[in-house]
Amino acid sequence: MEPLHKLIGVLGGMGPAATADFMHQVIGNTIAENDQGHVPLLVFCDPTIPDRSTSILDASASSPLPALQDYAQRLERAGSTVIVIPCNTAHHFYESIANSVTIPVLHIVDAVIHQLEEMAPEARTGIAVMATAGTTSSRFYETRLRARGYDCLTLTVEEQALISQVIYEIKASRVAASRVPAIAAARSLRRRGATCLILGCTELASIKETIETELPIVDSTRALALACIRYVVPPACANTLDPAKMIA
Amino acid sequence: MEPLHKLIGVLGGMGPAATADFMHQVIGNTIAENDQGHVPLLVFCDPTIPDRSTSILDASASSPLPALQDYAQRLERAGSTVIVIPCNTAHHFYESIANSVTIPVLHIVDAVIHQLEEMAPEARTGIAVMATAGTTSSRFYETRLRARGYDCLTLTVEEQALISQVIYEIKASRVAASRVPAIAAARSLRRRGATCLILGCTELASIKETIETELPIVDSTRALALACIRYVVPPACANTLDPAKMIA
Repeated sequence: MEPLHKLIGVLGGMGPAATADFMHQVIGNTIAENDQGHVPLLVFCDPTIPDRSTSILDASASSPLPALQDYAQRLERAGSTVIVIPCNTAHHFYESIANSVTIPVLHIVDAVIHQLEEMAPEARTGIAVMATAGTTSSRFYETRLRARGYDCLTLTVEEQALISQVIYEIKASRVAASRVPAIAAARSLRRRGATCLILGCTELASIKETIETELPIVDSTRALALACIRYVVPPACANTLDPAKMIA
Repeated sequence: MEPLHKLIGVLGGMGPAATADFMHQVIGNTIAENDQGHVPLLVFCDPTIPDRSTSILDASASSPLPALQDYAQRLERAGSTVIVIPCNTAHHFYESIANSVTIPVLHIVDAVIHQLEEMAPEARTGIAVMATAGTTSSRFYETRLRARGYDCLTLTVEEQALISQVIYEIKASRVAASRVPAIAAARSLRRRGATCLILGCTELASIKETIETELPIVDSTRALALACIRYVVPPACANTLDPAKMIA
């Protein structure tokens, strides 16, 4: 089956609401930035994929990798020309997923770095990544940011516990209960010298308004949505297009 | 490539926001009805598919059919076991789409009839379908409902104009401006003997709270989402499962 000119394959469902929110971000930002920049998406949304954090932290738990590779191959088979994964923690498995297909897989940290360069061009040290315990322990943000000349602030045990609690409350639809730990985590990071906050978990998008900080905030879901739009919009219309930076 | 046990292929993007809303309906209703009833979705969301209503009403306009058939085949190829189309107007092309694949394509009107039987078991005549001019002119609601023993109320030219205006305002994100024509259309239908209102356009979901009527209202997007959940949830868990009714 012939590939379409440009079709973004989305490896989603982790969780399903985060995938639908990601689609809204792509749709909303496309209309706002450019009417011609339509973004065709092919979205695999399977809520039954085994938990990513659990698998990273507990070697005896079921791995999501076989499902992720299978779905990536189905997306390629159906004509996708690039794959994105709107779940930060799943990027622990990035290399194994990318090696299972022949099309490029865009890395969410590269999309975040693009936004970082736009929103906080001065920040090179003190990058604070708010993420699941699985993402933090996997260290792919740190490694990928370091390779591009950035230094991350390592989370303390207390900060990680606060952020994990925020994610837990949001997953359970208790957004109000997520406010106190979200504010506490952001304050602690600021006090320790953070220059920029990265929302490195799709569940965290909703705390942007909550955390009452003057630090620049990069939302990874939004960054990934904007990278998809840059990929599809004709170069002449996109003033920030740089495929070399976008595709890992 | 082997099909998954059950994978719902979604032919979407008409419009993209309606597709994301449909996904939210599937996700939200799954959690509410049954924690085990996970619904894996593979969603084709291409906002560039030519306009359905225009194509039905103007034979010289581009047809969306080649794209719809191509995407249906891609969904099958990637392992979908059934296809749904969260766009009423696109059902004008239902037979041609269904004939282009070997897996079943669930018809949105069958999903609506399932809800009609639950919500308004007494209503057999006076079924009023609020839809685009394309859907109305195509008459597939009327034909399919009649085959199951229901009589539809034919829209007057004035009612169709009001409903088309509602859809136009909602597509342009002017929800407030859609209130007056929505209420006027519902009142007129009621006065002429409607026993039940069917929201036969995905854009109309938001007027449910607006139209101030005691008539039962069947939202076609929600009906289709519930049909998807019934298709996936194991029969033992689903008290309303009847595949013969669901699959056209």
